[in-house]
Amino acid sequence: MPELRRDPIIGRWVIIATERVKRPRDFRTEKQESRKGFCPFCKGFEDKTPPEILAYRTRDSRPNTPGWRVRVVPNKFPALRIEGGLGKKGDGIYDLMNGIGAHEVIIESPDHIVTNTELSNEHMVEVLWAYRDRMIDLKKDSRFSYGLLFKNVGMAAGASLEHAHTQLIVMPIVPRTVNAEMEGGRRFYNYRGRCIFCDMIIQEAADRKRVVLETEHYISFSPFAARFPFETWIVPKRHSSCFENIQKVEIEDLAETLKRTLKKIEVTLEMPPYNYVIHTSPFDQGELPYYHWHIEIIPRLTKVAGFEWGTGFYINPVTPEDAAEFLGQIEA
Amino acid sequence: MPELRRDPIIGRWVIIATERVKRPRDFRTEKQESRKGFCPFCKGFEDKTPPEILAYRTRDSRPNTPGWRVRVVPNKFPALRIEGGLGKKGDGIYDLMNGIGAHEVIIESPDHIVTNTELSNEHMVEVLWAYRDRMIDLKKDSRFSYGLLFKNVGMAAGASLEHAHTQLIVMPIVPRTVNAEMEGGRRFYNYRGRCIFCDMIIQEAADRKRVVLETEHYISFSPFAARFPFETWIVPKRHSSCFENIQKVEIEDLAETLKRTLKKIEVTLEMPPYNYVIHTSPFDQGELPYYHWHIEIIPRLTKVAGFEWGTGFYINPVTPEDAAEFLGQIEA
Repeated sequence: MPELRRDPIIGRWVIIATERVKRPRDFRTEKQESRKGFCPFCKGFEDKTPPEILAYRTRDSRPNTPGWRVRVVPNKFPALRIEGGLGKKGDGIYDLMNGIGAHEVIIESPDHIVTNTELSNEHMVEVLWAYRDRMIDLKKDSRFSYGLLFKNVGMAAGASLEHAHTQLIVMPIVPRTVNAEMEGGRRFYNYRGRCIFCDMIIQEAADRKRVVLETEHYISFSPFAARFPFETWIVPKRHSSCFENIQKVEIEDLAETLKRTLKKIEVTLEMPPYNYVIHTSPFDQGELPYYHWHIEIIPRLTKVAGFEWGTGFYINPVTPEDAAEFLGQIEA
Repeated sequence: MPELRRDPIIGRWVIIATERVKRPRDFRTEKQESRKGFCPFCKGFEDKTPPEILAYRTRDSRPNTPGWRVRVVPNKFPALRIEGGLGKKGDGIYDLMNGIGAHEVIIESPDHIVTNTELSNEHMVEVLWAYRDRMIDLKKDSRFSYGLLFKNVGMAAGASLEHAHTQLIVMPIVPRTVNAEMEGGRRFYNYRGRCIFCDMIIQEAADRKRVVLETEHYISFSPFAARFPFETWIVPKRHSSCFENIQKVEIEDLAETLKRTLKKIEVTLEMPPYNYVIHTSPFDQGELPYYHWHIEIIPRLTKVAGFEWGTGFYINPVTPEDAAEFLGQIEA
């Protein structure tokens, strides 16, 4: 059973895997199942994954057989386990609990594609519905506090299989960054009486120098204090703290906005490794006036980012204005 | 002139370089001067670096010529510039200031060594004195708030030159992680009346299951909630919030403790890329009862750490207890 441990100084929770490492080198060997000559996420290999949790499939097809368009399965090597109690306890000054949660994989296509920008708009809409449906379902479990939807594209971004997929980790705690964002949002709200993200949208839409693209419902831009070269955020124009509460027309627009934004990054940087993460509010909160869900896209270009993990201090060699200009020029 | 920009939501400051990137690919080409056939940090190539700021050298040798043992020079590609005012200003909801600060390189040996574990204890002591001397000197400048001493070993850890060196970035703001640690320490102090790091030392020294090594003045251990495999901290037993206030006997012990701890990591993991960072209190604070300086060593082993940058949420595949056991077994 994995363990969730809390750093006693800054309160950061960490998942500690408990599978025993036999030799120090063992964990350096990353699992590369695709090297076995087949991809377990491709149609026809449904028996190579754990049984599906959800699939959008043709009416006459049976579960765990071909006929699906989007398929959700438990992660074969889950960071957290679904069964059991939280077992919160102390150990002197330390706090820990069982590594309870969910770790699912949303397989975005039955065909072996490496990026979801290859999907049709209609197909991408279904991928986003799968994001939402799984969040809604797992939210019902009172043990869980947060659902983290994220995507790793390319080995250097942490992907162990290249077939386009998204991960969902649902956990009994709220990640530090989300707490920090909510606290910052609350501070601004208490002082100014408005949502800081909404203010940011107004300023970016007026300035235009960091805008990558704008649609009816979204604005994509390079954030003013971007940590990474070509970091790009997609923010919904309508205020909502909660991704799962997205409207149907908004999900249709998001499919296009996300695809176009990613395509611009892929073309400009020649298919770089990247991550994207959906930042949304915790499960136990209703709609909050001071928080605003959004997507953060981070191309993984520089190794220069050496000490940042340890310090929270970043050096970005590309100005957000330059990045937005490069991305803006690309047709997508 | 580089720019310091503040994220309006969580208040993180980021250095934005302003050298214009001509093509998106430009910044991906990492500078590899050592490939030119010589190393600018080796003795005999003193004219290939900016003029030295400090050097411990034989009495009869002249500045910027051989004869030095430890040499400090400005970084040739500085993230921050030493000259100018802070120029703090706003831009709508955003805050920014000039990228003022210092960016120095401490060259740890005139010989081309790739790790400071190859140094004699006496030589390592001088490296640590150079750390301290530069902090003390830069602290006098009232524009500056924090001095960050860190080391990148290996390309994957961000080192662009392999010759053993440490970097010092002195800046007009305090990094987020330091603020978070001080806040956590203050909270514990207000509640329990003690330093949380001091409590941690007591518990680790009693438990012993995460101890890597212990000397008269220091304890090295794998932290309870380690974010990374084989992450190791070195914490001084005597309470002090400020690295620069280190006593002479403590600096002698630290040279040995740091070398031995790094050696254990290098042997166990077969010379992995790694970073270490000295966490110390801000310049404008005196000795604080609730903060405790220490060194955090982070081997850079896993690429799995994909989305952590964006979320502050970590999955560590090696338990700190296993890591400490492996490291403890190595003679060093």
